[in-house]
Amino acid sequence: MNRPLADDGQPKPYQVRLALTALLGTLEPGQPLPPERVLAADFGVSRSTVRHAITDMVAAGLVQRLHGSGTYPVPPKVELPLRLASYTRDVSDQGLRPTSRVVSMRKVASDAATAAALDVEVGSRVWRLERLRLTDGTPLAVECSHLPVDRFPDLGRQIADDTSLYRVLEEEYRITVTRAVQTVETAMASPEQYRLLDADSAAPVLVLTRTTYDQRGTAVEHVLSTYRGDRCRLTAVLLPQP
Amino acid sequence: MNRPLADDGQPKPYQVRLALTALLGTLEPGQPLPPERVLAADFGVSRSTVRHAITDMVAAGLVQRLHGSGTYPVPPKVELPLRLASYTRDVSDQGLRPTSRVVSMRKVASDAATAAALDVEVGSRVWRLERLRLTDGTPLAVECSHLPVDRFPDLGRQIADDTSLYRVLEEEYRITVTRAVQTVETAMASPEQYRLLDADSAAPVLVLTRTTYDQRGTAVEHVLSTYRGDRCRLTAVLLPQP
Repeated sequence: MNRPLADDGQPKPYQVRLALTALLGTLEPGQPLPPERVLAADFGVSRSTVRHAITDMVAAGLVQRLHGSGTYPVPPKVELPLRLASYTRDVSDQGLRPTSRVVSMRKVASDAATAAALDVEVGSRVWRLERLRLTDGTPLAVECSHLPVDRFPDLGRQIADDTSLYRVLEEEYRITVTRAVQTVETAMASPEQYRLLDADSAAPVLVLTRTTYDQRGTAVEHVLSTYRGDRCRLTAVLLPQP
Repeated sequence: MNRPLADDGQPKPYQVRLALTALLGTLEPGQPLPPERVLAADFGVSRSTVRHAITDMVAAGLVQRLHGSGTYPVPPKVELPLRLASYTRDVSDQGLRPTSRVVSMRKVASDAATAAALDVEVGSRVWRLERLRLTDGTPLAVECSHLPVDRFPDLGRQIADDTSLYRVLEEEYRITVTRAVQTVETAMASPEQYRLLDADSAAPVLVLTRTTYDQRGTAVEHVLSTYRGDRCRLTAVLLPQP
């Protein structure tokens, strides 16, 4: 297809960028941009001009190059409301398919931070449940939950892929989560986390720490989550302090 | 001072790391670690063993090297509650001194994102107020606010360093901010932002986007803020969705 540039006297790289942005808007979901050599021929410019324009658009977060497959529009970020709801609900509300995979589930001795959050002795036994959260099959977050073993003795055999932890707490232990305190930070992740998340190790992550409380105000869970920064944003409604 | 290692049979680098962590706890605020050669002599190990231990602690976010000045404990992060309060209040509540510096204040044509947020025509005149937020004299964030010029015609001469924008809206325009919608993302900042923030360009930032509404539900302000990720965390209390 011939796609002549508007040629309005602006610099060629700028015209190519505008033409590519317009082209992005016409792609079907999952459809890549045409190859660089095709775009160069269509626009009547050199291949390196096209390549530079695409590199700029990668840096701006508009497109991504998938190895050996082509250049694709970056999908919109998943919106995660700052509320105490299940991951399943937050994601499925947006028409996306949420799944969870148990990476590991074992008993460990609680470290100082976990013990302080759960109000238990340092070194006491806690479950360490590491799960990978996915949307439409793509990794979004690694979530590492800690819960006291003496309170939830059978959790090890009650959690599988796609199990809702909060539903298990409710149905098996008569516990409702009613409140959580959460912090949000940014950092670079560990190599192991980037591998699990299938993410670019140059991309920062959002680190969420949460302590969840039951209907009696007792801490039941301490969670450290690592979210891919290129795949999600948090949303909140702010009100004045009373 | 001689600081012999415990020498409990653990590897030397591990013993040095423990000894340095213990030493950090004894420093006065603003006091650096002793120089590497002094620590090496005190511990009875090589200088490169000390240097490696300190490099590991820099990577772990425990200490920072300040050029030509020494190695210092990393100060605790500033806590920013996710609520609709002034920057001044959020920071002074923690015993820190908040200041603001106007970087620029001018009228611009609103772009598509700002126009959509403020519910005005694309290209209509908006104030673009860029401010640097500091705590105890150290840059924390660059905040870029947009407000419609026709609604706030004299804002250009009503804002100076350390002026509260919300107080001006209240006192000069009888507007109270009652609600805001905020998103939180992470990204790498621009070279200009890293310069303003006096921050390491390898460190990710938190990007906050906020639209603020007045007592009638009209959007009055659209803000894009870039916070140093190494200097602050956001905190929120989460409640179940009704």
